[in-house]
Amino acid sequence: MAIISKATIERLSIYCMYLKRLLNRNGSNRHISSYELGREVGASAAQVRKDLSYFGNFGCKGVGYDIENLEKKLEEIIGFTKKWEIALVGAGNLGTALVNYKNFRDLGLNIDAVFDCDLAKIGNTIGGIMVRSVKDMEQVIREKNIKVGIIAVPADDAQEIAEKLVAAGVRAIWNFAPVSLKLPDDIILSSEYLLPGLASLVFCLNNKIN
Amino acid sequence: MAIISKATIERLSIYCMYLKRLLNRNGSNRHISSYELGREVGASAAQVRKDLSYFGNFGCKGVGYDIENLEKKLEEIIGFTKKWEIALVGAGNLGTALVNYKNFRDLGLNIDAVFDCDLAKIGNTIGGIMVRSVKDMEQVIREKNIKVGIIAVPADDAQEIAEKLVAAGVRAIWNFAPVSLKLPDDIILSSEYLLPGLASLVFCLNNKIN
Repeated sequence: MAIISKATIERLSIYCMYLKRLLNRNGSNRHISSYELGREVGASAAQVRKDLSYFGNFGCKGVGYDIENLEKKLEEIIGFTKKWEIALVGAGNLGTALVNYKNFRDLGLNIDAVFDCDLAKIGNTIGGIMVRSVKDMEQVIREKNIKVGIIAVPADDAQEIAEKLVAAGVRAIWNFAPVSLKLPDDIILSSEYLLPGLASLVFCLNNKIN
Repeated sequence: MAIISKATIERLSIYCMYLKRLLNRNGSNRHISSYELGREVGASAAQVRKDLSYFGNFGCKGVGYDIENLEKKLEEIIGFTKKWEIALVGAGNLGTALVNYKNFRDLGLNIDAVFDCDLAKIGNTIGGIMVRSVKDMEQVIREKNIKVGIIAVPADDAQEIAEKLVAAGVRAIWNFAPVSLKLPDDIILSSEYLLPGLASLVFCLNNKIN
C-alpha cells in the first residue's frame, strides 16, 4: 500500500459520513459524482478521485459512484467495519457530548466504557453507559480488551491517565486535554486541541480572507 | 503577505497555546528553541521555522525564541489580541464544554452570548453566561455586533441557525453539527466534524501504523 497521509484518511471519513447521511435520508439517487461528493465536504472533484484512487477504482465514468457501495468500501478502508472497544475517561460535558455524538453512533463507533474520578459522577449513566471509577479502569480495559482510549479530563490529569491507559493495554489515544502527552513511540496518539479551528476563523476574519 | 495555509495558522495557534502554558507555569526558561517548540506540538524544527518565517524573524541563533515575546507576536498574528464577540448556539453538553474550554479562556477568547431553543435551558447559566432564547438571537447579535458564531445544535437545526446568524451580521461560523452548511461565499466557515480524528486513529490501529 502507498503511504496514505492523515489528511487523506480524514477526508475519507468525511466522505463516509456524508454518504451515510445520504443513505439514511433514503433519497432516490443511487449514484454520486466526485464533483458532488467533493462539494459537500469542501474538496475538489480531483481531490476526491485522488483520495479514492489509493484504494481501488470505485467509480464508473459518466455514472459516478454507487453511494451504498462506496460508503461500505470507505468503512472497510478506514476500519470502521471492525468492532473497536473504546474507553472514555472524563464524564464531564465534553465526554458526555462525545458519548452521544451522532457521527460516531451512525457508524457503529460506540464508547464501551466511561471512567471518572468524581464521586458525584460515578454510578451515573451517560448515553446509556454507567460511569465507573478510574480505580477500576485498568482492570476493565484488560477484561474488555479495549485498544482505543479517549481522554477528556482536565489538562493536569491527562498525562497520568494516558500512562494508565497504555499500561492497561490501550494502543491508540485520542486526547482532548489541552496538553501534549509524552507516550511510548508505538502508541498512536492524536490530539484534538479545538483551538486551531477557532484560530483559523479569527485569522481569516482579521485579515478579511474568505 | 504571502498566502498562508490554514494548516500553518492552525500550527501557530498550537505554538501559541503551548507558549502560553509555559508562561503560566512560570518556569525559569526564558527561551525556547524551534526544536523544543516543534517537539511539543508534533512538528519538526524546520516546520516551526518555516511557519514563523512568513511573519518575520523572531528567533536569535543559538539562543532561540524569547517565550514571552513570541507568544505575544503569535497572538497578534492570529488576531487573538483583538476582542472578538462570539455567540454560541446550543447549550447542550458540547456547547457547555466549549464555553468552559480552558484553551480559549487562557487566550481571552470568551463566548459572550449563548442561545438555545430549549425552554429548560433558557435562563440557566453556563460558564457564567445566561442562556437566552434563540428568538432573541438576531437582536442580541446586532446589538453586541457579534461577528463569530459557533453552532453546537443538532444536525437538523444547523442550516437554519447558520442562516439566522448570517442574517444578523455574523461573518465567521464554526460549525460542530455533523452536516455541511450552505452559506454565501463571503462567510468564513469552518466545520469540526470530530469523526476525522477518530478515523485516523482507527485506520492506524487497523493497519498497525504508529
